[in-house]
Amino acid sequence: MNFSSDNWAGAHPAICEALTAHAGGFATAYGASALDHQVEQRFSEIFEREVAVFFVATGTAANSLSMALLNRPGGVILAHTKAHMIEDEGGAVEFLTAGARLHGVEGPMGRMDPDNLERAIRLFPAEFIHHGQPMAVSITQSTEIGTVYSLEEIERISAIAKAHDLPLHMDGARFANALVSLNTTPAEMTWKRGVDIVSFGGTKNGCWCAEAIVVMDPAKARDMPYIRKRSAHLFSKSRFIAAQFDAYLRDDLWLNTARHSNAMAQELAHVFRVSENARLGWSPDANEVFPIIRKDVAAKLEKAGVNFYSWNPPADLTLEPDEELYRFVTSFATREEDITTIRQLLDK
Amino acid sequence: MNFSSDNWAGAHPAICEALTAHAGGFATAYGASALDHQVEQRFSEIFEREVAVFFVATGTAANSLSMALLNRPGGVILAHTKAHMIEDEGGAVEFLTAGARLHGVEGPMGRMDPDNLERAIRLFPAEFIHHGQPMAVSITQSTEIGTVYSLEEIERISAIAKAHDLPLHMDGARFANALVSLNTTPAEMTWKRGVDIVSFGGTKNGCWCAEAIVVMDPAKARDMPYIRKRSAHLFSKSRFIAAQFDAYLRDDLWLNTARHSNAMAQELAHVFRVSENARLGWSPDANEVFPIIRKDVAAKLEKAGVNFYSWNPPADLTLEPDEELYRFVTSFATREEDITTIRQLLDK
Amino acid sequence: MNFSSDNWAGAHPAICEALTAHAGGFATAYGASALDHQVEQRFSEIFEREVAVFFVATGTAANSLSMALLNRPGGVILAHTKAHMIEDEGGAVEFLTAGARLHGVEGPMGRMDPDNLERAIRLFPAEFIHHGQPMAVSITQSTEIGTVYSLEEIERISAIAKAHDLPLHMDGARFANALVSLNTTPAEMTWKRGVDIVSFGGTKNGCWCAEAIVVMDPAKARDMPYIRKRSAHLFSKSRFIAAQFDAYLRDDLWLNTARHSNAMAQELAHVFRVSENARLGWSPDANEVFPIIRKDVAAKLEKAGVNFYSWNPPADLTLEPDEELYRFVTSFATREEDITTIRQLLDK
Amino acid sequence: MNFSSDNWAGAHPAICEALTAHAGGFATAYGASALDHQVEQRFSEIFEREVAVFFVATGTAANSLSMALLNRPGGVILAHTKAHMIEDEGGAVEFLTAGARLHGVEGPMGRMDPDNLERAIRLFPAEFIHHGQPMAVSITQSTEIGTVYSLEEIERISAIAKAHDLPLHMDGARFANALVSLNTTPAEMTWKRGVDIVSFGGTKNGCWCAEAIVVMDPAKARDMPYIRKRSAHLFSKSRFIAAQFDAYLRDDLWLNTARHSNAMAQELAHVFRVSENARLGWSPDANEVFPIIRKDVAAKLEKAGVNFYSWNPPADLTLEPDEELYRFVTSFATREEDITTIRQLLDK
Repeated sequence: MNFSSDNWAGAHPAICEALTAHAGGFATAYGASALDHQVEQRFSEIFEREVAVFFVATGTAANSLSMALLNRPGGVILAHTKAHMIEDEGGAVEFLTAGARLHGVEGPMGRMDPDNLERAIRLFPAEFIHHGQPMAVSITQSTEIGTVYSLEEIERISAIAKAHDLPLHMDGARFANALVSLNTTPAEMTWKRGVDIVSFGGTKNGCWCAEAIVVMDPAKARDMPYIRKRSAHLFSKSRFIAAQFDAYLRDDLWLNTARHSNAMAQELAHVFRVSENARLGWSPDANEVFPIIRKDVAAKLEKAGVNFYSWNPPADLTLEPDEELYRFVTSFATREEDITTIRQLLDK
Repeated sequence: MNFSSDNWAGAHPAICEALTAHAGGFATAYGASALDHQVEQRFSEIFEREVAVFFVATGTAANSLSMALLNRPGGVILAHTKAHMIEDEGGAVEFLTAGARLHGVEGPMGRMDPDNLERAIRLFPAEFIHHGQPMAVSITQSTEIGTVYSLEEIERISAIAKAHDLPLHMDGARFANALVSLNTTPAEMTWKRGVDIVSFGGTKNGCWCAEAIVVMDPAKARDMPYIRKRSAHLFSKSRFIAAQFDAYLRDDLWLNTARHSNAMAQELAHVFRVSENARLGWSPDANEVFPIIRKDVAAKLEKAGVNFYSWNPPADLTLEPDEELYRFVTSFATREEDITTIRQLLDK
Repeated sequence: MNFSSDNWAGAHPAICEALTAHAGGFATAYGASALDHQVEQRFSEIFEREVAVFFVATGTAANSLSMALLNRPGGVILAHTKAHMIEDEGGAVEFLTAGARLHGVEGPMGRMDPDNLERAIRLFPAEFIHHGQPMAVSITQSTEIGTVYSLEEIERISAIAKAHDLPLHMDGARFANALVSLNTTPAEMTWKRGVDIVSFGGTKNGCWCAEAIVVMDPAKARDMPYIRKRSAHLFSKSRFIAAQFDAYLRDDLWLNTARHSNAMAQELAHVFRVSENARLGWSPDANEVFPIIRKDVAAKLEKAGVNFYSWNPPADLTLEPDEELYRFVTSFATREEDITTIRQLLDK
Repeated sequence: MNFSSDNWAGAHPAICEALTAHAGGFATAYGASALDHQVEQRFSEIFEREVAVFFVATGTAANSLSMALLNRPGGVILAHTKAHMIEDEGGAVEFLTAGARLHGVEGPMGRMDPDNLERAIRLFPAEFIHHGQPMAVSITQSTEIGTVYSLEEIERISAIAKAHDLPLHMDGARFANALVSLNTTPAEMTWKRGVDIVSFGGTKNGCWCAEAIVVMDPAKARDMPYIRKRSAHLFSKSRFIAAQFDAYLRDDLWLNTARHSNAMAQELAHVFRVSENARLGWSPDANEVFPIIRKDVAAKLEKAGVNFYSWNPPADLTLEPDEELYRFVTSFATREEDITTIRQLLDK
């Protein structure tokens, strides 16, 4: 039973079937096949506008190459202090932009606080070259702690970015989970709220490795083919990513797997909420649950074969000495019975 | 009927089956799963020594990150003038090394001439800093024009590299094709001849996207995990590459698909050799055939649905005005009957 | 009357004379002249060991190229949160290392707290690749707020760095000011306390533009000539830097200008300490004074033609609403009478 | 007696005097002083249009940062095969652009052949991403072998660049020597012929270290302040470069020193032309003379204390076995009597 991360799951059967179905025959290499173009077009339908789409295979590539597209000399990217880009990408953003810097912006519940963002941007005034220049704002949807920005919150962030002439990026490694959580549409959650570029993740939600950089204004994506190529992220047999997205975006597979993950997270949250040996750190909006569990009970879970990570508590969370904060991530592969088992283990 | 490139083919059925077989269950992400380790171990068996193995998904990544491992400030890489790194990787080597330079070394039949290599290295004497410093020699096996270095030729190149204290890299995008062409072993073709690091390609020979950087001396690979991570080439669901290599290296699949490709190339070469309307530019050693065809006949082939590229003739090849040089690439997916069709079209 | 910064001063007459004296005749370019070698040798005398010396012309170059020498893929540099590298170099360290990251370590009085350093290093454990790897520790001597690390404090930082196998860099933009403040020797303040590499500044202390990267173990400096050349920081007429250092290090000029600056700072501090309209934020160790002044009085100073900057107060400093924190920097060019004038203006 | 290079000379007395004259007093740091602005304005006068000017201190910095301003992902710079950028800058252009590539274009007499340029650009068609994209054309005026492009030749190169929408850069390390050779104006030799950006050199013509990046359209220079800062090429005491240029551009000093150098080169060329033991490789247009000298005679010169370099002969130059090609560079510091001495030594 595994709640370590949604990227510990394998691939959804429909993804494997699509790969097998598209394995035969010859197709133009390097992203120029009919299937590539057809799936790119599918993104335009989903986003309800003509978008430019670039397939890559890791979320870190999607984020880093997005930043490379927005790159400015001496550039500073404003992102939440706990953003994946800052904490977990091993310097990829800095490397693939040849030196852009990430400036952490605090905010409660994993979301950037708009006032803090405004203040942070003002640290880099145009006339003071020694600090560098801001180049982009990036938000993560859903966030690293399983919360989700409301449409209004996105709009508020976006208004600040626009006021400073900064493009807005959305790290959507868990885009689908946020989308179904808000019960909204891709268009509403992105460009209608001022988002300019999205790292659209498929990997964590059932694909093997399928990520798309979606640029809302194709005219601004002119250099992306070169950016992707020179970082070695253009695939010769690009159709193998296209095939994954073809299945992913067909018949609402992506929305259904996300709904399932989120529902599992809600059930799991309920289990912790009602347990005598655990409580919730905060309520999940998407597919990550952060319970506070008595350490001896957590050890019991682990001994029973349940996998999950402990997590650094935010400053405003008070734990008892015998408690610890943990992260449980659900996925398309989480089963109802896993939740039941946890409930039984918890309060046994 | 497609002879454009071996990366226009899809994936071998065994590769798809392996992906499906490994799609279920949970596995440690980021290259730390049991399958990852097991397949890495398989490489050590194949190379008959403990090697360090790093999976990536594009040949350009394998080459560029190999160079990043060998990187030196002001570094210059010596490779054949027509090497993939120089001609076809969009500046990835330069970018992912943050500015190393590629210096082309001429040589007949797609192979670097040892005397030219010696001369080229001497252009960068240690005491003349303005030219930069040599950092690596790279050979391509099989070469960009379908020829193969003999073991003796590799040894001669290697001796020069060693004499100048330079590591030797092998771009093995078509490693298997060269191997079966020479009827030798991976150990004989690499470290026993002084090769230090190999871009071991699976993609062109039947995988979807499976490349491995094989470092002969694991002690020298210390920084590679960071190099791969910071360039966004570490996969979360890394087992999907491991699964491809698992099938690829099992039951001689890789050798058999390469043997098939090479055999098809020999048959195709024979067809051109005996045709009245075509002749061979040179004899193929691996899976690329370079015929000189009468332009009107080539047009007939294309009209009949045969796909292939025209090719810039080397300086020492004389063509008649009505002739052109073309490249035909065979693969695991090339069928006997395709060769027959071409023979019929050629001389009809 | 100018207290904006020590780099608003021009050059000491002895520096100009040296430049004029060495302007005639021909000398080998690119750092290979007799004068270059002779002045490099002078550094070995001053540091009481054979050191490798590399002249550059900006402090940012000295810092950035030092970091480039220590560079590791995915590398993280640990420096005080307010270090010049982090706050004021426009991303030069990140750019010239092709993406290394700076991690701020807090500490009171402008000095890194050793416990915080230890904790910060532990954020980047070797087995967790996603965070990157620590590559260097950097301290600033004297600090950005005019304080100085004691020899014991340097030793303590150094012990932590060594325990984690990390090299220790000293940003010595104001090296001489710290040295005379501690009344010690270059050897005692650096390698005898575990410092591996120093940005040795001359510019702020009376030169036009003369900085030296001093590497304590010359064997580790092998790549520096290439690092300097490829970043365009190798001067053809390198003797013009050598000439500055020749004068700077002759007859204790550098120590005398630093003693003068520091003495002026002490006098200025006294003026603020005893004034009814001002008080000291903290006591200066070197040539920067941070007074808290009544805003109306500060305005009066400015109106009278005194130049200085306002400064963000540290968190633990409490100001009255009518007060503000300011920075006054003294230099070789500060005159006794300037201090007198300020005293008169302050309390008039 | 030294003819090794014009950067083996020191500084013109007027340059030293200017440095001394401006050494006193305080001035805003980092390029914002009154003198900086005044000298920048002087460039606009000289170029007869409002230009953006950025002082740096090495020619390699001027070239590299110019390229960084014009940078494109996967970018390729077209320059003469023997350009300084390609041959002598240690990879600075590649490094400071984070991976742009230099593509050599052949041409006789050190000048790029327009037809070759056209052909070279066509190697990088927009639709073929794997080759990268052209980003700039760069010519050197005067060239590395002492020749000069005529205004018509510049115009022809420029027309090709413009037709492909590529900016045109001029490496003017010896700008003044070319200018007086053509007896024209800066405006005529640059923007009136389609040059967009110039590395305007002062160092080789009598300054210590003074180079200016001159951008003809200031609107296109927006990012340059950040590009210069993040590469550590912004000087705090920037006025020391401004002071050099102030003297350099005053009272035609720069034109007079260049005229002197060129005249010395003509006299020296005459000496070789009429000698029985030497002949000219080609006629000099600027301040570099390339004689073919009998080896024993050259040895005699060296023994008598004359310094100069031997030079690789171009392919179309035929030498006798007892001859060798050499380079003699004149400068503001070359004296009439040095020429006389050489004449005497040659034919004695």
